[in-house]
Order: sequence, then C-alpha cells, then structure tokens
Amino acid sequence: MAKDLHITFLLDFYGDMLTEKQREVVECYYNEDLSLAEIAEEKGITRQGVRDAIKRAEQQLIEMEERLGLAKRFRKVQEKLTTMCDCALQIEAQNEKNGDDPVIRRNVEAILAYAQELVD
Amino acid sequence: MAKDLHITFLLDFYGDMLTEKQREVVECYYNEDLSLAEIAEEKGITRQGVRDAIKRAEQQLIEMEERLGLAKRFRKVQEKLTTMCDCALQIEAQNEKNGDDPVIRRNVEAILAYAQELVD
Repeated sequence: MAKDLHITFLLDFYGDMLTEKQREVVECYYNEDLSLAEIAEEKGITRQGVRDAIKRAEQQLIEMEERLGLAKRFRKVQEKLTTMCDCALQIEAQNEKNGDDPVIRRNVEAILAYAQELVD
Repeated sequence: MAKDLHITFLLDFYGDMLTEKQREVVECYYNEDLSLAEIAEEKGITRQGVRDAIKRAEQQLIEMEERLGLAKRFRKVQEKLTTMCDCALQIEAQNEKNGDDPVIRRNVEAILAYAQELVD
C-alpha cells in the first residue's frame, strides 16, 4: 500500500466530509506519516482495521473528486498563478534593465506577493 | 422565498453532490429562473413538493460549504486575481508613459489573460 500524494491533496479539500474517526486515521497516515502498525496501536484497532478504514476513506475522497472536480480546478489555478509569476519576474528583470521605474517595481512586487499567498 | 445569489454560487461548486432529481429542480429554479409553479407543472409534482425539494437542496449546499469552505476559498482567489489585474493595469499605464517597452507589454498582457481565464 503506497502512500499517494494525490490523496494528501484530496484530503486537504474533502477531508471534512469524512467521519471524525476516518479523518483521524487518514490524517495519522498521510499527514503525520505514521505506519499502519503505529496507528493500530494508537487507536487500539487491528492493523487490518486501519488498512480498511484508510482504503474506504481514500475511495470516498476519490469519489468526491470525481463528482466535484474541485481539487483539479484548484490545481489549474495554481498552475496559472505560477505562470503569472514567471511573467511578473520577466517584467521585473526588464524594468531593472530600463532603470528600475518604482511604479512598475511596486506593482510587480504586489502581483508576486498576491500570487504567493494564493499558491501557499 | 427569495432567490439567493449565494446559492447559485454554491450550486456551481457542490451541485454534483445533490441527487439527479434535486439538481434538476434546483437548476430550473436558480439557473433557468423558472417559478415554483412552472417547475411543478414541468416535473408533474405539487408546488409544495418543489418548494420542499429546493429547501432541502439549499440546506445541503449550505452544509457542504460549512464543512468544506471551498466556495469561500475560491472566492478569495477571485478577489486577489482582481487586485492582481489592477496592478497589471497600472504597470501597463506606466509602461506606456515610459515609451511602451514591448517585453513589459507582452508580459502584462499575458498576466491579464491568465487572470481573466481564472476569474471566468
């Protein structure tokens, strides 16, 4: 059972739709990087029980994404923001070559700061 | 029963979590702007039945947003993108004053185009 980065991403979006118990187990596994055995010990359930809970939760997260596609939508935003940052950096470099106009510099910095906030 | 713009926004995010039947009724009401009486006639149910279905669906959409907050998260992105566009427009104006450097112009246009795609 390989830990799937995509699940971590989905968990950020849809984690709050899982039951409290499911979310606890899945977060231990994906966010705190505990092993099945460690989670089993901590929660007082069998290793197989942990595995089943994780599998069920993963399935639910994947189904939510299949229905809503919001993680994909957000990822697209992040990709475009990254490209927008590249454009802003090119403006910054060109502006420096041209003698560093402060109005342009200030606005480039603002664009980069907003983009950074959104990508985080 | 006033049509709530916020519901239209939530419908765009979470509509696919409603049942087929619920979604049909809610979309007639919010997206096609039919009246309760018109929907009742079209679907062959009572006006009260339509009203109840819409109320239930609205409640579900609101609950989804309370749990996941993805519509709010997206709205924040849209607000920041609008501000980023303002910054890009200021760069464009300043660049024109400075003699219209083509590298700066091209990159400003790219930023505006990407932002536009994301806001739509």
